[in-house]
Amino acid sequence: MYYIGIDLGGTNIAVGVVDEDGKIIAKAETPTLVKRDYREIVKDMAMAAQKAMDEAGVKVSDIKSIGIGSPGTIDRKNGIIVYANNLFWRNVPLREELQKYLNVPVYIDNDANVAGLAEHVSGACRGVDNSITLTLGTGVGAGVVINGKLYIGTFGAAAELGHLIIEADGLPCTCGSNGCFEQYASATALIREGKKAVAENPDSLIAKLVEGDPEKVSAKVVIDAAKEGDPTAKAIFDKYIHYLAIGIVSIINAFDPAIIALGGGVSKAGSFLLDAVVGEVKKYVYGEGREFAKICLAELGNDAGIIGAAMLGKVN
Amino acid sequence: MYYIGIDLGGTNIAVGVVDEDGKIIAKAETPTLVKRDYREIVKDMAMAAQKAMDEAGVKVSDIKSIGIGSPGTIDRKNGIIVYANNLFWRNVPLREELQKYLNVPVYIDNDANVAGLAEHVSGACRGVDNSITLTLGTGVGAGVVINGKLYIGTFGAAAELGHLIIEADGLPCTCGSNGCFEQYASATALIREGKKAVAENPDSLIAKLVEGDPEKVSAKVVIDAAKEGDPTAKAIFDKYIHYLAIGIVSIINAFDPAIIALGGGVSKAGSFLLDAVVGEVKKYVYGEGREFAKICLAELGNDAGIIGAAMLGKVN
Repeated sequence: MYYIGIDLGGTNIAVGVVDEDGKIIAKAETPTLVKRDYREIVKDMAMAAQKAMDEAGVKVSDIKSIGIGSPGTIDRKNGIIVYANNLFWRNVPLREELQKYLNVPVYIDNDANVAGLAEHVSGACRGVDNSITLTLGTGVGAGVVINGKLYIGTFGAAAELGHLIIEADGLPCTCGSNGCFEQYASATALIREGKKAVAENPDSLIAKLVEGDPEKVSAKVVIDAAKEGDPTAKAIFDKYIHYLAIGIVSIINAFDPAIIALGGGVSKAGSFLLDAVVGEVKKYVYGEGREFAKICLAELGNDAGIIGAAMLGKVN
Repeated sequence: MYYIGIDLGGTNIAVGVVDEDGKIIAKAETPTLVKRDYREIVKDMAMAAQKAMDEAGVKVSDIKSIGIGSPGTIDRKNGIIVYANNLFWRNVPLREELQKYLNVPVYIDNDANVAGLAEHVSGACRGVDNSITLTLGTGVGAGVVINGKLYIGTFGAAAELGHLIIEADGLPCTCGSNGCFEQYASATALIREGKKAVAENPDSLIAKLVEGDPEKVSAKVVIDAAKEGDPTAKAIFDKYIHYLAIGIVSIINAFDPAIIALGGGVSKAGSFLLDAVVGEVKKYVYGEGREFAKICLAELGNDAGIIGAAMLGKVN
């Protein structure tokens, strides 16, 4: 049997046919073209799924289930997207609509959870029962796997580790609280500090790399400048690593997982990021000399969305 | 069948015979008298267990297992207390020694976990799958129950929620990190701030209640003075509540449990504490209008140690 995984984004919809081992057999893509009636979007989604099945040489009867990784707030039980800001969706009956085209079970979960499940099944966290995948992107997302299953909590809102408060009364967060982890450890945090640097330190390599235009600052620019040894960029990067480590130490003290995998845009910095954060975590982790989570890079990149969504029907 | 639960403390050892529902049938107690050879302490423990069994009218053949709630670092698999500061124990083969007297399965876990399990089985958290019991005492301990079982993590060190970092680079903690939750939300934190108040505000009610002697400051004194409306005490209490709420919000965002129960010495403040913290949590919890954990007082008090220890053999 096979599974279909759908990575529903604000720009693109990526669909894949996935086997029992979490390997993608065939892929298809279609632009989301948001602001259309959701029925049109779901129709394109179904067509992309059909295309991927055709390419894989499988029929609907070979498909055990479809999984969808979606942004926003999800009513898993009823298969409804309650609210998804960047899709302009409110109370969209996604499961029901998709089943008009493909009459198989449909599972929906949020994109960070799905990425965590993917790394558990066939990525950096395979082979262990308890793992956490942090997605360091616009925000900080997390997928928590406990005893081999996604942990979603009692009201479906667990694993919001980007909203661990790591700095009491710190920077205001979109969630209504202050000092949340994602205000300090997301790509957005690096960009915010990089933009400040362009204004305050016009001689820094960051300013040079963006030709003085703060709007061109990306997480990559800040990290590249830090790699080159630029003092301004290095200071921003070191502070970023410090906060990232503080959040990871809290996560270790709470969940004590076997593996913590770092994914998302910032993780593209690779070993430059990883070595720094592992060193910093070691300074603060509780219990001298004890064993704790292996921290590593996520392995599946953009495919995590498809694979994890597909595996919703297998693992849960 | 029955279970024996042993609450092993630095001053007293409390033993109880507990039924399948987590109810104590008979109790016995013996002083720990630390600094003795551990064999003598374990012998007294076994004698207290025999006494409780006699009182309950049950025989060893009626006992399914013995559970022990212990301070310190525990090797659960081998039944060894690796290190327990206040017992002066290092690598004590507690299970093996106790089985010389009572040859039944012996389970050992730490006291905060055991309290969480007790509240799950027959206290404030009964009837739900996911719950967390916070013990607000000398430190902040936590017992995390997920899907009806104690969650101990991969290396046995999960649920150290007193060491969530809530104030980056804040007050130094005994764990080697800074800004840990327990530095702000333990009884110790209230005492520390109360002592400062005695020195800095000799007119405060706190100073009056302890007759100017900072060594007499307890969490109760500070809370009693706050209840009376003393401005100095109220400011300390409000700050304490703020930090307690910040930690609880992080716990909600991480674990999304059905219930969070507050136990330990500070929780004796009752509804004065509870109403304040519930109000403060509501200000910062993620997701407007959504359902989240019920916060309440733990119910079992000192019996939690016996009941939870006993239930180690039933639930795990």
